[in-house]
Amino acid sequence: MTYCVGLMLDRGIVMMSDTRTNAGVDNISIFKKMTTWQVPGERVVTLMSAGNLATTQALVSILDERTKAPGERKSSLLDAPSMFQVATLTGNALRRIIKDSSQAGNRSTFTATILLGGQIQGSSPRLFKIYPEGNFIEAGEDTPFFQTGETKYGKPILVRAYDPDMSFEAAIKLLIVSFDSTIKANLSVGMPLDVTVYEKDSFRVTHEFRITAEDEYFTIVSNGWGAALKVAFSSLPDFSFDDTENVT
Amino acid sequence: MTYCVGLMLDRGIVMMSDTRTNAGVDNISIFKKMTTWQVPGERVVTLMSAGNLATTQALVSILDERTKAPGERKSSLLDAPSMFQVATLTGNALRRIIKDSSQAGNRSTFTATILLGGQIQGSSPRLFKIYPEGNFIEAGEDTPFFQTGETKYGKPILVRAYDPDMSFEAAIKLLIVSFDSTIKANLSVGMPLDVTVYEKDSFRVTHEFRITAEDEYFTIVSNGWGAALKVAFSSLPDFSFDDTENVT
Repeated sequence: MTYCVGLMLDRGIVMMSDTRTNAGVDNISIFKKMTTWQVPGERVVTLMSAGNLATTQALVSILDERTKAPGERKSSLLDAPSMFQVATLTGNALRRIIKDSSQAGNRSTFTATILLGGQIQGSSPRLFKIYPEGNFIEAGEDTPFFQTGETKYGKPILVRAYDPDMSFEAAIKLLIVSFDSTIKANLSVGMPLDVTVYEKDSFRVTHEFRITAEDEYFTIVSNGWGAALKVAFSSLPDFSFDDTENVT
Repeated sequence: MTYCVGLMLDRGIVMMSDTRTNAGVDNISIFKKMTTWQVPGERVVTLMSAGNLATTQALVSILDERTKAPGERKSSLLDAPSMFQVATLTGNALRRIIKDSSQAGNRSTFTATILLGGQIQGSSPRLFKIYPEGNFIEAGEDTPFFQTGETKYGKPILVRAYDPDMSFEAAIKLLIVSFDSTIKANLSVGMPLDVTVYEKDSFRVTHEFRITAEDEYFTIVSNGWGAALKVAFSSLPDFSFDDTENVT
């Protein structure tokens, strides 16, 4: 499995992905699932992927090759006039890769889902979730973040603590809590974590870094969250049996 | 789907189940998924079920009929000499029901999973998770609680805040937080909630009641938990970009 989250904030986009890939529980590896293309001053596009590793690596390679082959630049991430066009050509490439692989086997084996965020001059930052069928949805005010992969364990804290107005620092803290809850519950999501921060209208990657399991801040949040949750839990009033229908 | 949790505590067992059943999203109903049999002073057995409703209702009906038909009492929950035997005969009945239904269709359609807890004179309280194949596992010190159904959203808080030494009142608060997180995230889990509390060595149901969506305490916890989480989140130190490798 995998866990990726893209958060759309008032001040930009924060994306985080884990790095564990596994085929069974005894064949695990570390692969980066996040790729960024940029033309500084003009566009930034960040892609995160969950799903079959051969599919997602093929997708990234094909998208990347197109940015380098002059003849194909008309269908390149670096030439598309809008983020909508970038999402469309990414979806088309994804659908074709899955279709090609599936001729030799089960389609569901080769499936993948993509989170794609960024900004191109002339438009606002946009965040998309692209399905294996090649179609996609876009984040908006009502649903300002997307998850993919092993999404359930880490969702409640996102729902409760996300605020579009939050700082990048708070957003990273929030994502670390969400990822830590997921990693504690599911062996198929693992450290280290990759992070990309994009500040609206900057048209260049603002921050890009990796958080390891030994990272001091990660450890503080991971340990501190358990203690903070217990304090939060204690702060709620205790249940009382007085008002219940007691069958004793 | 469904959500059921059984918590083994030092002082007894607390079980909670939701009541929503659904076939698609436009065919939802309320059914109690928790049944208790007891011989006061001698045994208490509580069963919670997740899965195909026809299967789980058949299971409860068959187990219940056996307690009433004198000729079959040797294979009854009320005559079995131990909780292990109760789990065995429940598992056998479940396997047979699924097998019979599957002759007319897809086996996976008729599947169900059972949480079974209780105590019989001469032994300690025990808590089991019974699989559709009829086999089962038992809670112990390392894994002192079982969930079934839509388990992921509500697991992180259980992992963090469960304590075997906690009071029944705290355990019910914990379960309400876990169920509330799940209900907020998944339409197939819904109010009201059924609760059974069994105090060790009492050999009678200690508390048995239903929590409705309008319940004052539930509302306080549901609303309070969001606020308490935000406080917990704020209490953690903020991330700082100073120590990261910045590519700007």
